[in-house]
Amino acid sequence: MLREKVNQVAAILNEKGIDLWLTFVRESGTIHDPALDLILGTSCTWQSAFMHTRGGRSIAIVGSLDEANIRSTGLYHDVRGYVSSIRDKLCETLSDLNPEKIAINTSKNDTMADGLTHGMYELLQEYLEGTPFRDRLISSEAVISALRGRKSPDELNRITEAILVAEEILGKAGNFMAPGKTEKEVAGFILSEAEERGVEPAWDIHYCPSVFTGPESAGAHAGPTDRIIKAGHVLNIDFGVKFKGYCSDLQRTWYVLRKGETSAPDEVERAFKTVRDSIRSAALALKPGVEGWKVDDAARSYITSRGYAEYPHALGHQVGRSAHDGAGVLCPRWERYGTLPYYLVEAGQVYTLEPRITLEGFGVLTMEEIVVVEKEGCRFLSRPQEKLYLV
Amino acid sequence: MLREKVNQVAAILNEKGIDLWLTFVRESGTIHDPALDLILGTSCTWQSAFMHTRGGRSIAIVGSLDEANIRSTGLYHDVRGYVSSIRDKLCETLSDLNPEKIAINTSKNDTMADGLTHGMYELLQEYLEGTPFRDRLISSEAVISALRGRKSPDELNRITEAILVAEEILGKAGNFMAPGKTEKEVAGFILSEAEERGVEPAWDIHYCPSVFTGPESAGAHAGPTDRIIKAGHVLNIDFGVKFKGYCSDLQRTWYVLRKGETSAPDEVERAFKTVRDSIRSAALALKPGVEGWKVDDAARSYITSRGYAEYPHALGHQVGRSAHDGAGVLCPRWERYGTLPYYLVEAGQVYTLEPRITLEGFGVLTMEEIVVVEKEGCRFLSRPQEKLYLV
Repeated sequence: MLREKVNQVAAILNEKGIDLWLTFVRESGTIHDPALDLILGTSCTWQSAFMHTRGGRSIAIVGSLDEANIRSTGLYHDVRGYVSSIRDKLCETLSDLNPEKIAINTSKNDTMADGLTHGMYELLQEYLEGTPFRDRLISSEAVISALRGRKSPDELNRITEAILVAEEILGKAGNFMAPGKTEKEVAGFILSEAEERGVEPAWDIHYCPSVFTGPESAGAHAGPTDRIIKAGHVLNIDFGVKFKGYCSDLQRTWYVLRKGETSAPDEVERAFKTVRDSIRSAALALKPGVEGWKVDDAARSYITSRGYAEYPHALGHQVGRSAHDGAGVLCPRWERYGTLPYYLVEAGQVYTLEPRITLEGFGVLTMEEIVVVEKEGCRFLSRPQEKLYLV
Repeated sequence: MLREKVNQVAAILNEKGIDLWLTFVRESGTIHDPALDLILGTSCTWQSAFMHTRGGRSIAIVGSLDEANIRSTGLYHDVRGYVSSIRDKLCETLSDLNPEKIAINTSKNDTMADGLTHGMYELLQEYLEGTPFRDRLISSEAVISALRGRKSPDELNRITEAILVAEEILGKAGNFMAPGKTEKEVAGFILSEAEERGVEPAWDIHYCPSVFTGPESAGAHAGPTDRIIKAGHVLNIDFGVKFKGYCSDLQRTWYVLRKGETSAPDEVERAFKTVRDSIRSAALALKPGVEGWKVDDAARSYITSRGYAEYPHALGHQVGRSAHDGAGVLCPRWERYGTLPYYLVEAGQVYTLEPRITLEGFGVLTMEEIVVVEKEGCRFLSRPQEKLYLV
């Protein structure tokens, strides 16, 4: 798998006109540059430089005690150890390669391309002082976004498997939930089902799964509470699992019937259908070459055109090794997203689609589906929720 | 535990003359600022600012979807949510507080104080443009080093427990190992013992434990191999566990008897005793107020005075939530350590002591002990290896 990713690097560097990609890290078990998940798969201790050239060479400069471990990955042709300072070997290696453009992992926009800490950035500046290379540094955004985004067949298989497992567990959770049970009980059930299948939650266990019931619930990114499921609640769950290192991330919505009801009230049904159809509308807009914000806008404007408030977040993010797998994002043109809304969608990317409507007096309606972008458009990897589930 | 740490902050800020400590992060499940382990205990998604004042106030500015989760930690008096950009609330809050010195998590020297990425640093610079606060930023090294280093009684208990468990497992590993078995088999045995006790390895499972047998072994930071234990080998193991979030990190050394031997050859014994006594010598030097490099030098010079090469690494590091728990370090004055050698030892810190000798033809002899610094000197938390273990 790592070999598969590393093999993609040289072609991407050529495509982006970058001579060298430099990942500069230390104590990576403590502060973990997410790029290492694509090009190393283990951790290093001392200041380390992992270099990939557009000619396909791979060189690692690492502390002498890390040499054996890095060599054993088999991912670097050339592993160079040092004892007292990385400076000399780093500068020598750069002089030999003499790259015109050096991509480093810094980005105001994309967390996944922002693994270089400011302290390490300053060290790098110091080491390169007096060399021509200091002025040749650029962001690796384009490299990492392409490398992470373009899923290999094996990666797609793992994501699909992670989706199937999460869907199965969410189905069971629907049978388990009932008025009188708490959010925490539902979450506990889901985690025990995950454990039974030997998979771990796809993100922070504090809020994976999230369970939100009723009009007073937090609605997102919060852990399950002791809040009790009651008739008349809209309930939703946000959950995903990690399967062989790859994530799913899904949301499903239920309505808890009141005495005498056999279906949800019209206003709940209408909101559900609006969310569902906004996803369909976004899926139609999602194809290679389109800017992310336009896909977000397809869902967002559909929802507002039906008289609802717009959702306070992005329509969707990529999924892969992380549940939030980096740029591009299907997001509105808000300051906090920087340049992310303008990234072009590419074939091979896997996105969530997760608009929402908050319905006063009931709760939050939101489905989160997962799609893969293909040449002509996108294909659903999740089985989309077509009907509001009833409890 | 988190409450205990957060309660230490205001006094440390006063002691260091710092008005505000600002931890600025995003997607902290993906790129994790280690400071969050001391002041948050969960993760956040959007750009978030966690602020602590010398007056004891704590304010969090987070994305609206993260509000409920951050509020539920109970660690922030004041949680402020935003939707489209953090800029306004960040600048307003700073204007209200008007701090003269603002510590941010950036450090060329200390990984633990270097959680701010370069991209986030640049964003912060942008947000503060036109305000007086841009020129008031300093490194939080002193804050984080004190906060992390000064262990509370509860923290010490957890570390001690982690040491006891690792010592017990290492003892069992000594009975398990035998000529003909491989490094991987010994490591597998250790991991199964850890699992049985419900504890996880203290660092990357690829090399926790490390098992090094014989003269050809890597000697540090490498995973166990298929190398076979043979008579005449010196064998050492580097291992620690995590107990309730706190780590141990120990090394022990064995000698594998050859046919007819009842004790190790003199040269092995002599090297063993040199390592052991260099630890004793360092322990005598380790007390509050001394610069770290002097403690390193006590062991290093003892070893070289006996005719051995100096070890190619630091004598010791702090242990706590991480096996490598940040500044200060007991390290030589090499460039790669920056200012770390000059940090003053403080009471309450927990250090490893781990010198080594590589003995040609035999392997690596190294013990790693753990001590806590007290007012008058240091006290061993591990039970020091006094004799070379024989297999």
